[in-house]
Amino acid sequence: MIMRRKFWGWGLEGQKLDAEEITQLEAAYAGHFGVQGFDITPDPVAGEIVLRAPRVTPPTSFAACCTTDHEERLLHCYGRSFFDSARMFKRDFSNPPDVVAMPADEGELVSLLDWCDAINAVVIPWGGGSSVVAGVEPPRTERPVVSLDLRRLDRVMEIDKVSQAARIQAGVLGPAMEAQLRSSDLTLRHFPQSFEFSTLGGWIATRGGGHYATLYTHIDDFVESLRVVTPRGALQSLRLPGSGAGPSPDRLFIGSEGTLGIITEAWMRLRPRPVHRASANVRFRQFGQAVDCVRAIAQAHLYPANVRLLDATEASVNGVGDGGHCVIVLGFESADRAQDSNLARALEIVGAHGGDYDTPSGKGAPRQGAAGQWREAFLRMPYFREVLTARGIIVETFETAITWDKFTDFHARIMAETQRVIREVTGKAGVVSCRFTHVYPDGPAPYFTYHALGDKARMVEQCWAIKRATSEVLNALGGTITHHHAVGRDHRSWYDRQRPALFADSLRAMKHVLDPKGMLNPGVLVDP
Amino acid sequence: MIMRRKFWGWGLEGQKLDAEEITQLEAAYAGHFGVQGFDITPDPVAGEIVLRAPRVTPPTSFAACCTTDHEERLLHCYGRSFFDSARMFKRDFSNPPDVVAMPADEGELVSLLDWCDAINAVVIPWGGGSSVVAGVEPPRTERPVVSLDLRRLDRVMEIDKVSQAARIQAGVLGPAMEAQLRSSDLTLRHFPQSFEFSTLGGWIATRGGGHYATLYTHIDDFVESLRVVTPRGALQSLRLPGSGAGPSPDRLFIGSEGTLGIITEAWMRLRPRPVHRASANVRFRQFGQAVDCVRAIAQAHLYPANVRLLDATEASVNGVGDGGHCVIVLGFESADRAQDSNLARALEIVGAHGGDYDTPSGKGAPRQGAAGQWREAFLRMPYFREVLTARGIIVETFETAITWDKFTDFHARIMAETQRVIREVTGKAGVVSCRFTHVYPDGPAPYFTYHALGDKARMVEQCWAIKRATSEVLNALGGTITHHHAVGRDHRSWYDRQRPALFADSLRAMKHVLDPKGMLNPGVLVDP
Repeated sequence: MIMRRKFWGWGLEGQKLDAEEITQLEAAYAGHFGVQGFDITPDPVAGEIVLRAPRVTPPTSFAACCTTDHEERLLHCYGRSFFDSARMFKRDFSNPPDVVAMPADEGELVSLLDWCDAINAVVIPWGGGSSVVAGVEPPRTERPVVSLDLRRLDRVMEIDKVSQAARIQAGVLGPAMEAQLRSSDLTLRHFPQSFEFSTLGGWIATRGGGHYATLYTHIDDFVESLRVVTPRGALQSLRLPGSGAGPSPDRLFIGSEGTLGIITEAWMRLRPRPVHRASANVRFRQFGQAVDCVRAIAQAHLYPANVRLLDATEASVNGVGDGGHCVIVLGFESADRAQDSNLARALEIVGAHGGDYDTPSGKGAPRQGAAGQWREAFLRMPYFREVLTARGIIVETFETAITWDKFTDFHARIMAETQRVIREVTGKAGVVSCRFTHVYPDGPAPYFTYHALGDKARMVEQCWAIKRATSEVLNALGGTITHHHAVGRDHRSWYDRQRPALFADSLRAMKHVLDPKGMLNPGVLVDP
Repeated sequence: MIMRRKFWGWGLEGQKLDAEEITQLEAAYAGHFGVQGFDITPDPVAGEIVLRAPRVTPPTSFAACCTTDHEERLLHCYGRSFFDSARMFKRDFSNPPDVVAMPADEGELVSLLDWCDAINAVVIPWGGGSSVVAGVEPPRTERPVVSLDLRRLDRVMEIDKVSQAARIQAGVLGPAMEAQLRSSDLTLRHFPQSFEFSTLGGWIATRGGGHYATLYTHIDDFVESLRVVTPRGALQSLRLPGSGAGPSPDRLFIGSEGTLGIITEAWMRLRPRPVHRASANVRFRQFGQAVDCVRAIAQAHLYPANVRLLDATEASVNGVGDGGHCVIVLGFESADRAQDSNLARALEIVGAHGGDYDTPSGKGAPRQGAAGQWREAFLRMPYFREVLTARGIIVETFETAITWDKFTDFHARIMAETQRVIREVTGKAGVVSCRFTHVYPDGPAPYFTYHALGDKARMVEQCWAIKRATSEVLNALGGTITHHHAVGRDHRSWYDRQRPALFADSLRAMKHVLDPKGMLNPGVLVDP
């Protein structure tokens, strides 16, 4: 029996934290917020929710690929942000898609778009539904809304072992894709936190970032060519290792968030599965020293797979620190050769910056070392949300990138503003922490997490107040409104300010060409 | 005294091959083509050429930044391809720009565009004039033509040593830029063959490739942000180490070849100057073995700075081989650490593929080794053209990229077709060779050079016949029409076929937004 996706949380029905994990979590948060315990809102149940009747009925010729099934419509109401979770626990499913369409192939997808065009529907391309920026949420509109779920385009079509690349359908989830690649001993090596429930097409459409910290980590660099279906027809770029022929066609669709076309497949660059690993746990007493150390490692062009700086709070919350030290999870990997000398050089840099470290030892240690542990914890995090939301705990994140020269002031002001606004909005101190998800020679991608005790009746508004305040500071200080979460609907106002106006005009003109009726994901990125 | 640029050749007036070099060159070509010697056309002289009178006179307010000087107009007639050289030696300067404008700053540039708009002029953005694809050549049009030379925007404005980046004006030539960066001990490390006489803005506008063979070599990856002046106004992207906020604005302008706007400055990612080097000369008897070896090195993700495969002919012509072996110029470099272990690993791969090698020894050897020698020879090559054209010798190159799986057949067919068409067109066998300029894990960028004995009266047409035939095959077999030379006017017909039609429509729509009157570089990339 195949388990269904939870419509209200992360993962499959039945996948939950166990009782002991929940007890520990409650104790930790109760301690921090100085409360005795939590009132627990039960998980939403499909049967208790009444959805608006579908405003359109698919023609019988689409019986095999369209549904108005209650649970499917529930699943396609929201992404997976805190805002989504809080609204779901409030039983607010007031704006569902009318139809969920699941084309089996490109021909069916084209027919569906024709039908949507004929009925003036809005189409929301849907991969794994893991958006945390309202990228897959139906807009409030009089037009019918069709959520276009690509789950049936889930195959690796062709593997070119000579060039180490594969042609892959866009709707495949991370684990299914890697399973199909397995026999070739090649891997895409792209592990966003949403890996289990996000798709190749989603990663490309949102310029996703993998969990690797340096060098090739943005999906952008792995795309060899794209196939995209637009309301005007399909287009396919040439499969090339590199090209200087005009502006890259791929780069205009990478990050287009379903507004310019539907990515149906891509040739992706792969690499051999790593077998050599070397990792270390690094500790610093001062955050500033740790930042300088990470910068030095990045600027040495050592290209560790992981060089993930966690501030003392972040380390402590994730059980990899003592609360008094920052931690750097440092790891190298290669399919070709031992990485000990690269690790040794990185640890020299650590020493020169005043850090301590230990290296895991014993058989299999590098695999289970700091980097491996971190990865496990990292992929587990999304499962926490539904437990916390049910208890009125706001846990949300925001992420950005900034050049090194601005970082120290930027970080201080973001941390202070986040603390300030949490206290203002909730009346209690929150917990705010920072880690670096990615590191470039010219700057880090800082990722901020905050924990606040919300008021269940109004915690969506509370979290929005916090998001607005932090986004304002972030935008004012020159950070990008998103490094890898995408723009969606939630980040629009800051994206609009960040983006050069003439580029917005250009994008709008391009959208007019490819999607003349504004069918695709309206509200995202650019208005008609 | 500052020497002037040669209007008819490469470099400055007075920079020529010496008599001995010329004698050797003549002997080699005479031997190959079985001729006694060559009839030598004298270098063009400014005084002998009568230019069409300027069709427009700049207003007196532009006296300081506009000129109709005879030699300036001559210099701005052509780029530096064989076609350009042959036409110049034929004294064909029948389509000069009317005015050469050299704005001192962005304000003046904007005023100039306003004037061009008012008189319905065509504007050709001009950096170093090194285009080999007719990218800076005035189109034949009734509209006045202004060649917009950015030479006065030649400064490094700001260096951010913390983030290892600099804000640099687009009109600076390679050597002047590196000289200004020198005190910071940072370098852009971007060395296209045209380095001496090409500009930062030109590299960005054409998606230039540096002479480094792997990893970051395309200028695309070094751009942190851009400032662009369009007929609709200026735009500037945010300076960011990475971002996932919508499609990258920079990537639209990178490769736009002066058709969407004029790049005036850019924040560029730099790196510390390398001090550790390790290199080797590698020999293979079989080209196929050498190709497999280069692929294995690329797929090991060793990231050598150089892994330049020269086939036996290419090696022999360039004096680095015995004619019976292919050569791989293999070099590693780093600012941070010794590269001996990376070289050793690469040489293990060489050994496993049946190659031989020697490593230079002695003080300074790595600097002067294979990679260093190659670089010197490589930067010297453009000076040969005017000597050869004057003797009726056609030497031209074309370059592409292709995935590894297709390479063997692709290479065989391109080589055969080039040989065939040279014989058909000139009645004599030519010399055709191939090297890899860049190597990616998923494929190489093969670069083909051919030498043919032309008929001076019609060698432009002869070379076009060869170019058409080779481009047809290249396009039919799935190669890109250019990996780093750009599209310009010469590659348009194959670019139009290679580019997805809906992307062409998109690009056209964006051009309408940014350049509504089609003022900028008409004929290049896309028609209105």
